[in-house]
Amino acid sequence: MRPSGRTPDQLRPILLQRQFTRHAEGSVLVGFGDTRVICTASVQESVPGFLRGKGRGWVTAEYGMLPRATNSRSDREAARGKQTGRTQEIQRLIGRALRAVVNTEALGERTVILDCDVIQADGGTRTAAITGAYVALHDAMRHLERRRMLTRFPLHGQVAAVSVGIYRGEPVLDLDYAEDAEAETDMNVVMNEAGGYIELQGTAEGHAFRPDELSAMLELARGGIMQLLEAQRETLASSP
Amino acid sequence: MRPSGRTPDQLRPILLQRQFTRHAEGSVLVGFGDTRVICTASVQESVPGFLRGKGRGWVTAEYGMLPRATNSRSDREAARGKQTGRTQEIQRLIGRALRAVVNTEALGERTVILDCDVIQADGGTRTAAITGAYVALHDAMRHLERRRMLTRFPLHGQVAAVSVGIYRGEPVLDLDYAEDAEAETDMNVVMNEAGGYIELQGTAEGHAFRPDELSAMLELARGGIMQLLEAQRETLASSP
Amino acid sequence: MRPSGRTPDQLRPILLQRQFTRHAEGSVLVGFGDTRVICTASVQESVPGFLRGKGRGWVTAEYGMLPRATNSRSDREAARGKQTGRTQEIQRLIGRALRAVVNTEALGERTVILDCDVIQADGGTRTAAITGAYVALHDAMRHLERRRMLTRFPLHGQVAAVSVGIYRGEPVLDLDYAEDAEAETDMNVVMNEAGGYIELQGTAEGHAFRPDELSAMLELARGGIMQLLEAQRETLASSP
Amino acid sequence: MRPSGRTPDQLRPILLQRQFTRHAEGSVLVGFGDTRVICTASVQESVPGFLRGKGRGWVTAEYGMLPRATNSRSDREAARGKQTGRTQEIQRLIGRALRAVVNTEALGERTVILDCDVIQADGGTRTAAITGAYVALHDAMRHLERRRMLTRFPLHGQVAAVSVGIYRGEPVLDLDYAEDAEAETDMNVVMNEAGGYIELQGTAEGHAFRPDELSAMLELARGGIMQLLEAQRETLASSP
Amino acid sequence: MRPSGRTPDQLRPILLQRQFTRHAEGSVLVGFGDTRVICTASVQESVPGFLRGKGRGWVTAEYGMLPRATNSRSDREAARGKQTGRTQEIQRLIGRALRAVVNTEALGERTVILDCDVIQADGGTRTAAITGAYVALHDAMRHLERRRMLTRFPLHGQVAAVSVGIYRGEPVLDLDYAEDAEAETDMNVVMNEAGGYIELQGTAEGHAFRPDELSAMLELARGGIMQLLEAQRETLASSP
Amino acid sequence: MRPSGRTPDQLRPILLQRQFTRHAEGSVLVGFGDTRVICTASVQESVPGFLRGKGRGWVTAEYGMLPRATNSRSDREAARGKQTGRTQEIQRLIGRALRAVVNTEALGERTVILDCDVIQADGGTRTAAITGAYVALHDAMRHLERRRMLTRFPLHGQVAAVSVGIYRGEPVLDLDYAEDAEAETDMNVVMNEAGGYIELQGTAEGHAFRPDELSAMLELARGGIMQLLEAQRETLASSP
Repeated sequence: MRPSGRTPDQLRPILLQRQFTRHAEGSVLVGFGDTRVICTASVQESVPGFLRGKGRGWVTAEYGMLPRATNSRSDREAARGKQTGRTQEIQRLIGRALRAVVNTEALGERTVILDCDVIQADGGTRTAAITGAYVALHDAMRHLERRRMLTRFPLHGQVAAVSVGIYRGEPVLDLDYAEDAEAETDMNVVMNEAGGYIELQGTAEGHAFRPDELSAMLELARGGIMQLLEAQRETLASSP
Repeated sequence: MRPSGRTPDQLRPILLQRQFTRHAEGSVLVGFGDTRVICTASVQESVPGFLRGKGRGWVTAEYGMLPRATNSRSDREAARGKQTGRTQEIQRLIGRALRAVVNTEALGERTVILDCDVIQADGGTRTAAITGAYVALHDAMRHLERRRMLTRFPLHGQVAAVSVGIYRGEPVLDLDYAEDAEAETDMNVVMNEAGGYIELQGTAEGHAFRPDELSAMLELARGGIMQLLEAQRETLASSP
Repeated sequence: MRPSGRTPDQLRPILLQRQFTRHAEGSVLVGFGDTRVICTASVQESVPGFLRGKGRGWVTAEYGMLPRATNSRSDREAARGKQTGRTQEIQRLIGRALRAVVNTEALGERTVILDCDVIQADGGTRTAAITGAYVALHDAMRHLERRRMLTRFPLHGQVAAVSVGIYRGEPVLDLDYAEDAEAETDMNVVMNEAGGYIELQGTAEGHAFRPDELSAMLELARGGIMQLLEAQRETLASSP
Repeated sequence: MRPSGRTPDQLRPILLQRQFTRHAEGSVLVGFGDTRVICTASVQESVPGFLRGKGRGWVTAEYGMLPRATNSRSDREAARGKQTGRTQEIQRLIGRALRAVVNTEALGERTVILDCDVIQADGGTRTAAITGAYVALHDAMRHLERRRMLTRFPLHGQVAAVSVGIYRGEPVLDLDYAEDAEAETDMNVVMNEAGGYIELQGTAEGHAFRPDELSAMLELARGGIMQLLEAQRETLASSP
Repeated sequence: MRPSGRTPDQLRPILLQRQFTRHAEGSVLVGFGDTRVICTASVQESVPGFLRGKGRGWVTAEYGMLPRATNSRSDREAARGKQTGRTQEIQRLIGRALRAVVNTEALGERTVILDCDVIQADGGTRTAAITGAYVALHDAMRHLERRRMLTRFPLHGQVAAVSVGIYRGEPVLDLDYAEDAEAETDMNVVMNEAGGYIELQGTAEGHAFRPDELSAMLELARGGIMQLLEAQRETLASSP
Repeated sequence: MRPSGRTPDQLRPILLQRQFTRHAEGSVLVGFGDTRVICTASVQESVPGFLRGKGRGWVTAEYGMLPRATNSRSDREAARGKQTGRTQEIQRLIGRALRAVVNTEALGERTVILDCDVIQADGGTRTAAITGAYVALHDAMRHLERRRMLTRFPLHGQVAAVSVGIYRGEPVLDLDYAEDAEAETDMNVVMNEAGGYIELQGTAEGHAFRPDELSAMLELARGGIMQLLEAQRETLASSP
């Protein structure tokens, strides 16, 4: 029995609220249950040094968490003067995940920065961030398209992410904090709309996981991601 | 004529949404028009070194802005590795303003940290932060009181803040970004419920301001702050 | 009765020693009683990035304190690896105060950096720094003028600063450390030669200050600043 | 055809040289082909704050690369003043991998720090580091055992790691730099002696990888890791 | 012929002004010609961790230079966020030089920090700093003695320093900036009152220096240091 | 009697292994007894800003020590976020020593960076680093010569370094850690093939050293360096 009463293959309620803030080219509040992340997409008419003059764009991500997004307050990274290893790991993951569906030549010499800021955390902040950032990135691309700044639409695929794990011996989908804190294995899966893996990150917390457990988790992840991709499409089909 | 169509002595719509996030002892979303700041109050059962063993508590504040809270994206302070002078100045101001209404002996050897994070900026972020942080601080104090952790209520006064300025030659209340960017003088006023000044910070941007201009701005500030204090009382009187 | 025996409206002895060190275009040792600050003005033939190519110059300030300028030694900021919030706040104030009297177009694409380093502290270091930096800045401008590097003189006004406060219930001018440590209110006033306010920063340390107390403090500040402006003029009228 | 002429399931020559340097409790030079990493295990009689007084030990890792370990020199992290996100990600991975086989209660209140420093890089530095660090950790545990500082041997399993990927459409084992730079997918697999997964990190570089590709890669990894585990056992069985 | 007209073995005018600032236990303005350094000695009733509980004290030094002490302004180290290698090298040298004449057991569990801040630089700042810091240290020790906080006087020797070099082929004493910038060899010599070497640091800038040149430089240094030691004694013999 | 049984004028066994790693233009493992340092020379086709466009090259050095190169583990500088003063002092010394034998015009607008990383420390790491870095630098120059990128060979001399000291009252050559920790005086001597001094750094640890002790140490150093220079020549004469 899961603490939330969910079935093993049940996602938490999904929230994808577009135009959450005013200034960004894309701005989405994403919720996976009580986890809430603001994802903004900012377009800049320049690229990092290593891409200058190559006719290609770049997509990158930054991740942060408000100090009291969690149950006990954590230090503000800006005050400590550096980002933790965890933060860097997550923002690198988000960036890679989104770049996997971007045609950087179609984007042109521009950078899109995805800022994912957790305002409330209850497990799964990185998978929520990827799922929400995709919608924000899509809105930013439409923004460029409406202004006739593109010759082709730069997204060639769709991407979403979810966590899976082994909780009290059973594979479960989309772990909340209560489950995550106790899980024996925790895996984040990033997948595109064709069911291809973009990123797989699994960690044994308690015992090493067996190949059959891996298969069960991957199956759960596939089911969850298909629902998340559908939720993204629905949101994007509506007027924001 | 103000860009927003407001009269010189008119505040923007005020939003004070309590229990905005789940984890903090106090959590308020404050809005001054389009400016939106999340203010959380976190209670910690310890005090900074210089107060240890003295039977007194501490109240402090930290301030941040999401990178795309503004019209053009600013660098993430955590990534740059340090807080700007502006950030430090603002968080020191918020801390002083709130400490002015706290009886630190009644609080006991605890620290309350007020995190003020701007998610959307349109001028007046520091005055909105002070006004919202007061409500979050009050909720945190009630939280301690309900748990019978206090012998006396530690707040001995109420505090709110507003900006005033000279815009196109005329004193105006509660400047939005369009006004602020062009104002000749910008002043932040922090006041308690008895009309006493807690903090006054005025800066001539264009020409030096005259004593009569100062008087007119202080009069506007007083009127605005009385409305903000009333809004705080109304919010706190309702169940959250 | 003030610890120093001064009357409430009495400044400490003022020292403005020009050409205190050899290398800078302007170099002034300023003293407000026992407070001693070395203010140098350094001219650089370049401007910060945001001003490049705009035909305008820039004036900025940096502030520091020798570790043993104070009664108990404070850590060296260079060794700690960052400037405190207080330092940043003060250097931003000094920069704004001086820019208020500079015609940046007349200055041309140059930067003047005002370094204000406290070698002995006894209260009022920021107001002494502003008052001394004006003289150093003036000397640097004369230096450029003598070299025929200017078409117009870039200073269109004069600026000085003083602190006022409420000490043991009475408004007093130019607080020394003994008064400052105990004052209920502390206010720094920056004014130009026409009596216009350039900056006002008042903080209630004990109780909130009333409008009549504010008026009394502003009156004292005005009187003190007029004497400081006169002292600056005298110094500048003599050969250094 | 692989650039090195290896078959798809062929590891590079493995080197595990114990007692490579004199001072550390465990010191191993590990080679996967031309990749060379010095892994030292240092025992400290203390634990991090969060474990103090709990009767348990800790194992952690740090990773570095000499500036000219690579084909073009990279900046020295100590000179830049911070570790890159990549470095932090790798050292967190190494630490988690090794902790998975440690009984921290049997270790007692001690910390073992595994320093993995790459002196020559040719792909697979993190998997070589994990594989070598296990041997260094084992030597450090034997060192403690010989000094009768343990009541039980703290390692309850064995761990090794290898990379797999899709190179020119074909799954291959243990990628060298020439392959890695061009691979469409790159996956690091950490496994114990029972064939359980300790960590799985797969990233699509070019196209998303399909479930059948995942299976093929996992199969290759299993075969490679079994050989690495055997090599570790052989080394440890000999006198160093 | 030296730019200053001095003979090869002639020191610049020496200034040793005690009680230069008010707060420090020892405070000396030292001048070697136009080089001016404020040296303060601060006593703290604690020692660094590695000495705690050992009944011995510590003497250490920090060095800084005001940004415009030099002909062209250098960046403020506190603003850059770190001390240069040059600064660290110099402050380590000053600390070693002074510790060489201190009986740390007689000092007791206290630290004396020597802050050497250059307000005007014209070559030889480190040797001036050592020479002046000795006087400040002596005053601080007398301060402790007057308060009956010592059982024995902790200085068992006297120390001073001077630079020597090869300028246009000729060995010269106490190089000023004009000479230093052009010198083929630059050597700093720290010596005690018995003519023993405490520190020797010689660097060939142009050609390597021969043994006979070394001898000539050491002879000049000895003569100069004897005069400096005499100047210290005279200063300390007078009432400050 | 020396702990190692050596005579006072006896060097430890010298190791100079060229082509120790693959990527660098020069790569040498240098050993002075148990001290082991990897010295690589990396050629970059650019120069620091202050040399740009002047037709001259630059040679610089960086120094590091693996955390467990020493008997007790020291913190990783990259993790601490800054290099110690000791590290900076040593790398500045190595850079100066090597530049003394380089004709920077013959080098052309290139930089050679010498990375000296200690993998095992037993005293004398800086002198071993200089001695090994010379060989690495020479190999890098030959590398450029073979590619016909030079018109003249840029090395006009040869350089090596050794430590000398007073151990238990007697001058000794090439101190190992056991001697160094106890030595009364420690001196590092850098010399060229003509017997000219390039750098001399002597520090009295216990008592100040007398002129006759200085002479004896310099004599020992000369003898040792002549052997080191010979060892360099032999190594360079053989095919690597």
